[in-house]
Amino acid sequence: MTPEEFRRHGYAMIDLIADYRENIEQRGVQPTTVPGEIKAALPASPPESAEPFEQIMGDVEKLIMPGLLHWQHPSFFGFFPSNVELSSVLGDCLSTGLGVVGLSWQSSPALTEIEEVTTDWLRDMIGLSHEWSGVIQDSASTSTLVALISARERSSQYALMHDGLQDSGAPLIVYTSAHAHSSVNKAAILAGFGQNNIRTVATDERNAMSPQALAQAIEQDLAAGNRPCVVIATTGTTAAMAIDPLDAIGELTQRHGLWLHVDSAMAGAAMILPECRALWRGIENADSLVLNPHKWLGAAFDCSVYYVRDPEHLIRIMTTNPSYLQSSADGQVRNYRDWRISLGSRFRALKLWFLIREQGVSGLQARLRRDLANARWLAEQIEGSAHWKLVAAPALQTLCIRHEPPGLSGEALDKHTRNWAERLNLSGKAYVTPAILDERWMVRVSIGALGTERQHVEGLWALLQSLVIEMPSR
Amino acid sequence: MTPEEFRRHGYAMIDLIADYRENIEQRGVQPTTVPGEIKAALPASPPESAEPFEQIMGDVEKLIMPGLLHWQHPSFFGFFPSNVELSSVLGDCLSTGLGVVGLSWQSSPALTEIEEVTTDWLRDMIGLSHEWSGVIQDSASTSTLVALISARERSSQYALMHDGLQDSGAPLIVYTSAHAHSSVNKAAILAGFGQNNIRTVATDERNAMSPQALAQAIEQDLAAGNRPCVVIATTGTTAAMAIDPLDAIGELTQRHGLWLHVDSAMAGAAMILPECRALWRGIENADSLVLNPHKWLGAAFDCSVYYVRDPEHLIRIMTTNPSYLQSSADGQVRNYRDWRISLGSRFRALKLWFLIREQGVSGLQARLRRDLANARWLAEQIEGSAHWKLVAAPALQTLCIRHEPPGLSGEALDKHTRNWAERLNLSGKAYVTPAILDERWMVRVSIGALGTERQHVEGLWALLQSLVIEMPSR
Ligand SMILES: Cc1ncc(COP(=O)(O)O)c(C=O)c1O
Ligand SMILES: Cc1ncc(COP(=O)(O)O)c(C=O)c1O
Repeated sequence: MTPEEFRRHGYAMIDLIADYRENIEQRGVQPTTVPGEIKAALPASPPESAEPFEQIMGDVEKLIMPGLLHWQHPSFFGFFPSNVELSSVLGDCLSTGLGVVGLSWQSSPALTEIEEVTTDWLRDMIGLSHEWSGVIQDSASTSTLVALISARERSSQYALMHDGLQDSGAPLIVYTSAHAHSSVNKAAILAGFGQNNIRTVATDERNAMSPQALAQAIEQDLAAGNRPCVVIATTGTTAAMAIDPLDAIGELTQRHGLWLHVDSAMAGAAMILPECRALWRGIENADSLVLNPHKWLGAAFDCSVYYVRDPEHLIRIMTTNPSYLQSSADGQVRNYRDWRISLGSRFRALKLWFLIREQGVSGLQARLRRDLANARWLAEQIEGSAHWKLVAAPALQTLCIRHEPPGLSGEALDKHTRNWAERLNLSGKAYVTPAILDERWMVRVSIGALGTERQHVEGLWALLQSLVIEMPSR
Repeated sequence: MTPEEFRRHGYAMIDLIADYRENIEQRGVQPTTVPGEIKAALPASPPESAEPFEQIMGDVEKLIMPGLLHWQHPSFFGFFPSNVELSSVLGDCLSTGLGVVGLSWQSSPALTEIEEVTTDWLRDMIGLSHEWSGVIQDSASTSTLVALISARERSSQYALMHDGLQDSGAPLIVYTSAHAHSSVNKAAILAGFGQNNIRTVATDERNAMSPQALAQAIEQDLAAGNRPCVVIATTGTTAAMAIDPLDAIGELTQRHGLWLHVDSAMAGAAMILPECRALWRGIENADSLVLNPHKWLGAAFDCSVYYVRDPEHLIRIMTTNPSYLQSSADGQVRNYRDWRISLGSRFRALKLWFLIREQGVSGLQARLRRDLANARWLAEQIEGSAHWKLVAAPALQTLCIRHEPPGLSGEALDKHTRNWAERLNLSGKAYVTPAILDERWMVRVSIGALGTERQHVEGLWALLQSLVIEMPSR
């Protein structure tokens, strides 16, 4: 494609995206696609000759658009907000168009230095001290894996780097809660800790990790001759947005010399609001933390920021220094390849840099406060209504709700819950995520898509009420 | 940013990218930026209020553009071609603009099914059998890490998933060559094998892994009571594009039940040319392989395709299934989260899908053949010139060259080599990567940027000759 053709098709692409965002409410949030439908509509073999660009764009309209769950829809209340501010789209588009690659500082100086500046900015925005340094990763899952490997190596005095798995010693133990994200368990397995060495620490009535239970678990392992290694605490769990108490946990990890990793993938964004920072009091005791600007904050996926207090430790584990990557700037600059698993990287910082500048800190704060107010409003409606219940203390912008008609409990209640959630999603008018909490199904309402205003939350509430009235299931 | 503003700024962004590509030859390939310069030019704190978009774009012109190494420049002969075809830019831009997220099939059906179709197409393009299934990862480094973890779990009968690092048994051993990419060593350490259990198998005069030496190393480990686990062979090593003999290596891995992972991150793209496929004869004996369409092939970074023969094994290790990710489609569809480390993903397949369709297989083949011809031409010039030498057999599009004036050897020769390479790069007229081969510095010329025509290779050759004539160093 020549630059001239790119100009023409590029304008069309910009229009497509602008139109998509402008008219998104005309679409049902959830697609009606059935498994295999899109695959079957495409040729099994790649085209031998070039296809006209219009034909590709035709398939985008015909096949792709009807096959999407519309995360940017103002009535998307599923999973988590994965906002992509349009300014961030442009920053990311610039990254792709420039086509530069991060391997070392020298392989594109601006790529490294903007990443440094932007992660420093974000650090200040969330109220962390200057003891922290950040790097952009693809996902919180990867960041947590890096944290676990870092902990493993610190606890083993780098023995595993040298002698590896067969290091006999006593088992290294990972502590987390049952409410931790599934990526924690996965990372512990990938890092080689083993399922049997992951302790699920009990939680309290607010679904937060109990420091007493943690202390007990550590003592038990010590008594058994095991080696406590790392605690993964969560600021904002996935199901119920629970907040593990970092100050008490941090005291324990300090006392026992354990690594403390904090998964604030979702809720970390809220820390740009000073009034929320009490939620992670004690964060300065952590060794590492992860926060995903690609969620609520508004940066295009993928943009997960991993902060560490001791980059030298990270580099010691991650470093590679083949001759073809050496340069005279080494020693004076960051080589981010030594801060993450992948060697090459795109110019990921641009989308975050554009976002922060175009919105300003106050603009981002105003949007998040709007979402918190909307969530409080919905919580009040639910608390004031017979048969509707908040099944977890409302936290930030996530509500866990259930409709509990008289006489329904146990599996019948589960069936009712899944039933209305499915009908809601099938309606296309809004989208929510059912999940299990305390062994019972409930529905998560995650508020905070870019376009979600009070009227959309009101619409959801009306929809919820009308749905259960019509329900035949009682 | 409203959709209307986005339209306006979006057109400007498209123009900026089109202009950049059109006029790139007016720029020096390498920037003159000094360490810290860009960082110092930016405010230390994030902006409290929104900035006008024009101001951000002004900084792009003033700070970013002069701070880039221009990978898309036709006289870029460094590292490897990291081509970003403009059609791929548009596919990626669409992905960002739609802002949908892959978590499960249901979280955007088209995202999953297009990834399946596109990786199948690519599989056919490179002549693999239908026994392989593909997934897009961020990088070859990550893909290789996944391969090593897969091997570790197969060899330990999933013991490490359960009991983890302290699994006593004998050490699991990794075999690779000294020419393997630095990501192999890094992945082996991250996966917990330990540096001391990585065997560096000897290479032959073509820098390819010696199957005899590999056989011997395996026998030695068996005799010592160790557990041979995995061989990482490379099709196209980084320094000299050496090709490990997969048929002979595959025989050994089959005989001993070892995992065979093939790193064809760079050279895998050449397999779209039937005349190149003899280079990886035996590939069907591998368990996994990685190929980066984000290199020579032309897909925007990051797009690394990881192929496996036994996805069930991969899923068994990677799977997570929390309630909030379950859906009625499970069992009928791929949930790519179980094929990779990160949970969420952007719609990465679009950039590859756009590329293949807009170029057609024949278009991609023609470009790669052009680059191979250009490399052969330059190889002939060098072979025909006194004092210039190819220090490795020319392979595909990479040449390893040295200027060896009479009387210079050892460290003096190294100094000369690094000297002219640095002068070349400082000139801004072209860019190459110095590297060490057989303990001596040489210069890699990696041909194949999108815009690199014969005239640019001729220009490089003229430049090389004039440089060494002017050199004071003799
Ligand atoms: C608390 C928490 N941790 C981790 C993740 C995983 O994030 P990622 O998709 O970036 O790996 C999520 C969201 O999906 C989350 O809410
Ligand atoms: C042979 C080989 N393997 C692995 C890599 C690493 O690729 P990535 O940056 O995708 O991790 C490269 C190139 O950088 C390579 O040439």
